[in-house]
Amino acid sequence: MRKHIFNAGPCKLSDRTLTNTAKAVLEMGETGQSVLEVSHRSADFQKVYDETVALMKEVLSIPDNYSVIFVGGGASLQFGMIPFNFLKTKAAYVNTGVWSKKALKEAELWGEVVEIASSADKNFTYYPEPKSIKIPADVDYVHITSNNTIRGTEIFEDLDSPVPLIADMSSDIASRPLDVSKYFMIYGGCQKNLGPAGATFVIIRNDFVEKVADRKIPTMLKYSTHVDNGSMFNTPPCVCIYAIRETLLWIKENGGVEGMEKLAIQRCDALYNFLENSTVFTPVVEAGSRSRMNVPFLLRGKYATEALEKTFLEFVKTKNIVGVKGHRLVGGFRASMYNACTMEDVNALIAAMKEFEAKVK
Amino acid sequence: MRKHIFNAGPCKLSDRTLTNTAKAVLEMGETGQSVLEVSHRSADFQKVYDETVALMKEVLSIPDNYSVIFVGGGASLQFGMIPFNFLKTKAAYVNTGVWSKKALKEAELWGEVVEIASSADKNFTYYPEPKSIKIPADVDYVHITSNNTIRGTEIFEDLDSPVPLIADMSSDIASRPLDVSKYFMIYGGCQKNLGPAGATFVIIRNDFVEKVADRKIPTMLKYSTHVDNGSMFNTPPCVCIYAIRETLLWIKENGGVEGMEKLAIQRCDALYNFLENSTVFTPVVEAGSRSRMNVPFLLRGKYATEALEKTFLEFVKTKNIVGVKGHRLVGGFRASMYNACTMEDVNALIAAMKEFEAKVK
Repeated sequence: MRKHIFNAGPCKLSDRTLTNTAKAVLEMGETGQSVLEVSHRSADFQKVYDETVALMKEVLSIPDNYSVIFVGGGASLQFGMIPFNFLKTKAAYVNTGVWSKKALKEAELWGEVVEIASSADKNFTYYPEPKSIKIPADVDYVHITSNNTIRGTEIFEDLDSPVPLIADMSSDIASRPLDVSKYFMIYGGCQKNLGPAGATFVIIRNDFVEKVADRKIPTMLKYSTHVDNGSMFNTPPCVCIYAIRETLLWIKENGGVEGMEKLAIQRCDALYNFLENSTVFTPVVEAGSRSRMNVPFLLRGKYATEALEKTFLEFVKTKNIVGVKGHRLVGGFRASMYNACTMEDVNALIAAMKEFEAKVK
Repeated sequence: MRKHIFNAGPCKLSDRTLTNTAKAVLEMGETGQSVLEVSHRSADFQKVYDETVALMKEVLSIPDNYSVIFVGGGASLQFGMIPFNFLKTKAAYVNTGVWSKKALKEAELWGEVVEIASSADKNFTYYPEPKSIKIPADVDYVHITSNNTIRGTEIFEDLDSPVPLIADMSSDIASRPLDVSKYFMIYGGCQKNLGPAGATFVIIRNDFVEKVADRKIPTMLKYSTHVDNGSMFNTPPCVCIYAIRETLLWIKENGGVEGMEKLAIQRCDALYNFLENSTVFTPVVEAGSRSRMNVPFLLRGKYATEALEKTFLEFVKTKNIVGVKGHRLVGGFRASMYNACTMEDVNALIAAMKEFEAKVK
């Protein structure tokens, strides 16, 4: 039986993505070959790839002076690649939790790093006010994490920056309209809003690609390698790209990023409204900083016991709900609601929480 | 209609791999989730991952003091990672064509590189005689490419080496029994004999992992990062790993690597026997060096025209044969026959060539 999936990523994908990818694993179109078998150099696959890139550009309104590439290694490899390529003397990072800290740590290998804003003072339960983020003019770039999967905070504004702005949008890409022109680079793992694990997207301004630091960099870690070869310098993760294309087509069919945003707000409002009024559960993140993708929550007051936490996790299982165990850094629970998560899923979770409330009170 | 697939990679996979992966894309086991959706941190996926590693160890007879990891980025990323980690002062490379040269080039970034053997003198149409490969004792490691996909040459002996031996086995892993204990590291893209594109396997001796050069290395490029975290430092390419597990199970069911070798010899003998006796086609590679995986061949003598080449490629299409266009460096044709390629596929190709012979003579 199909579950209500609230995984932090990999996560729920659209029925279209699953059905059509499964079909392509048996046979891709009428090629007589599986998408697992087809040559990445074939016209058949090139068409899939080109369509995927074109859909990224269309769905995300990416200007013409940007390239879109798909590579392996995840966002974590990008954490290393960004400073390796672009940190000449100094870089600025906004610290909003584990993932931004990991990105920052990799930068320290190659130059000076300034943490220009942080929400560490309140245990990362808020996103620094956009106006409070003062970006210095003397850094090579500034790096932000737009959505914090673990902490459940998100920034909804595309910052103005005097230096190249780079954003890790692993967990909120394609969940709202975006002014791509404000960024020099946007990247992320695809395994949340775009498709399965195994591919990383990079949206990069063409004139930025060549602005590399004067140091020895392995070929595969240079952005130019992938941009110049249309992600085909080496064999790309073909089946992942196929699933991404299907997901982008599904986004288009469902109102584009505007449609995704509308649904995200609806989901998030429903869950937070319930949490605000619950006597047994409580939200973690401050209003104003709340991610629409990841909602961490805890048991409230006298209900906050380890035993009751376990009981709730066992209880939701009986309601076909998976993925709501909280990250160990926050504890409690977390509902990750990415693009393919429906109101039916959210309502099932809320109904389960209501039933649980009635049980324990 | 299912094609006879001779792609150089990605390539033909077993029916088991396709059927079961397609099923898992709809629902993985009875999890109520797709393999594209399931959390890599879940017990359900951990089980798949652990089984895949255990199957690698079993099928390839990997000793206990080795780790097996699956990462993204392809063998090309490994070309960069190997010297980045292990080249302290000097490394030795055997040059048997494009891929080994690419690997060698990345090493030059980090130290002295000696090319200890090469088949460049005869345009890479042979593999240097194992006895002729003199490995110096004063290098940090020696690197070989066991099978050359483009040139169609292969080494079938596991070399004795006074220094750590590292082999790129992207295109012949699991096609013959192997003495893993002769190597410190074996790696490759999985998209030939093991599964789809998107995952890279690394088999590495545990005591070698920590023998890294004293230099700054991004976290994701350190082998210890992946070994210490069982490939779960970041999100692994889950669907690729699932397909690899199915492929390994299929190998086991079909006589293991001994069964694969038997079939490989049969396929290769049939095709080379035909080529040797053909008046229209001719093999490229010297006897003794011939890869069992990739067989390049040309039109012979007066038949060697561009027009006839095109005619042949059009002709095989009508026989449901794909992937036999030669690499541009060699020209002509190439039949890549990996583990899942059947005698039926090979016989279909030979029959088509015979029919073509009769037509043009």
